[in-house]
Amino acid sequence: MSVWFTEDQVPGLRLSCRVSRVLHQEKTPFQHLAILETEVFGRVLTLDGIIQTTEHDEFIYHELIAHVAMCAHRGTLRRVLIIGGGDGGTMRQVLRHRQVTACHLVEIDERVVAVAREFLPALSAAMDDPRAKVIIADGIEYVRDVQEAYDLIIVDSTDPIGPAVGLFSADFYAGAHRALAVDGMCVAQTESAFHNARLVPAIFARMAGNFPIARLYLGAIPSYPGGPWSFTVGSKLYDPAEPVRPPPGDLRYYSPDVHRAAFALPPYVVQALAHPPS
Amino acid sequence: MSVWFTEDQVPGLRLSCRVSRVLHQEKTPFQHLAILETEVFGRVLTLDGIIQTTEHDEFIYHELIAHVAMCAHRGTLRRVLIIGGGDGGTMRQVLRHRQVTACHLVEIDERVVAVAREFLPALSAAMDDPRAKVIIADGIEYVRDVQEAYDLIIVDSTDPIGPAVGLFSADFYAGAHRALAVDGMCVAQTESAFHNARLVPAIFARMAGNFPIARLYLGAIPSYPGGPWSFTVGSKLYDPAEPVRPPPGDLRYYSPDVHRAAFALPPYVVQALAHPPS
Repeated sequence: MSVWFTEDQVPGLRLSCRVSRVLHQEKTPFQHLAILETEVFGRVLTLDGIIQTTEHDEFIYHELIAHVAMCAHRGTLRRVLIIGGGDGGTMRQVLRHRQVTACHLVEIDERVVAVAREFLPALSAAMDDPRAKVIIADGIEYVRDVQEAYDLIIVDSTDPIGPAVGLFSADFYAGAHRALAVDGMCVAQTESAFHNARLVPAIFARMAGNFPIARLYLGAIPSYPGGPWSFTVGSKLYDPAEPVRPPPGDLRYYSPDVHRAAFALPPYVVQALAHPPS
Repeated sequence: MSVWFTEDQVPGLRLSCRVSRVLHQEKTPFQHLAILETEVFGRVLTLDGIIQTTEHDEFIYHELIAHVAMCAHRGTLRRVLIIGGGDGGTMRQVLRHRQVTACHLVEIDERVVAVAREFLPALSAAMDDPRAKVIIADGIEYVRDVQEAYDLIIVDSTDPIGPAVGLFSADFYAGAHRALAVDGMCVAQTESAFHNARLVPAIFARMAGNFPIARLYLGAIPSYPGGPWSFTVGSKLYDPAEPVRPPPGDLRYYSPDVHRAAFALPPYVVQALAHPPS
């Protein structure tokens, strides 16, 4: 017998992985949550039937979302806020930077954290670091109300459907701008630049409306097909495309050359960004 | 009713596209050949159930396989040989370079050419260019026996299973080296650098065994999931990573910056290339 997990990626496109074991599944107050053992990606965490992270390729996404902004930040980079990212993978990369003194992770669904702690210990162990703090709360409200200033905000969210829609709004980016220090940066995962050719420019325009510097960068993430996956950075002062700080050791995806290369956008993406849907 | 085409990408991983119409299918003497109308990718050409090219994203693959070597070639670049590529998409990109005087395409399966001419006219129209010549023959034998020298050989093949296996062999690369001018280059599509983590270094080692300069570069191709798709270049004289010749106008994926960026390999790929399976 052969058991397959199938994800509806965009209308008319599906990705399927053979599953050797369903390790866990539950309906949380926010979403359906599962941990699957797969042949191709090892353990896979899904939310509402969409792959969020996998053991075998998580390093690509997590190194890309964390180290680009961190290595481009020329100033004091001590306090980092992660919105979402309840698996702990982004937090692990952030805490590899020794100068970080506090990493706060705001996850709406405490079950994601609990299940990641049980089934993805390599990622979630970062939460035991003395500099780490996990806050179970709505990231939109947290950013709106927070009084302290962060040096970097990382939006490690699900797709812009359901609970995460607000994390892609202009209001949220305005809140992130307020919650950042004078030289702060904000980076968000922002979907496939190929399949979401209308959404990506719209999100980019919202970021650019709230930050003096906005840049898009790309990476190829095997478990998020759709070709080039995009990340959008808003920055108050520093150019996100220029790595200046040495990265932590033993990385598998990130290097300063990969950092610069991620900002080399194909003309079709450049053109799409120049003409956001009105 | 909903009809889906499903491709077995690697064991345990499948991609499916919703099909609005099966425009053509046949069993040729070499393989199963189909043209599907899909929601996500427009018309799709499949061989033995694997997507070869699609209307919507063909520009990414074809611009990457053609313009990198062509824009890095510092010498006289007049005669180009394409092995495979019966849809005509690579030939179209090659012929955008005015200095090319002859582009020979050696396709083993004449039905691929005939079907592409009927259903993918935007790609196959390149075959009507007076500089184009289509030769129906086995590419391995053609390269072994050919007497004339080419400036560039492009191996636009199917995956290394079935008829195309020999196109990934050390013997074939040795033949390509012999069929090239003293400053010639050879570029081949060489599969996903993530999912084929053993195959890609093995192919790279074979290319490096036959050419003084061998380089790998990457691109994100939506219809070939598996994250970073690899291309391997063998060169007798010129550095493939350095664009020197201006590209043709109106490209949608290629630019000199994208060219340089494609050679920025993540550490996990660099490490894999350094340790090919013995």
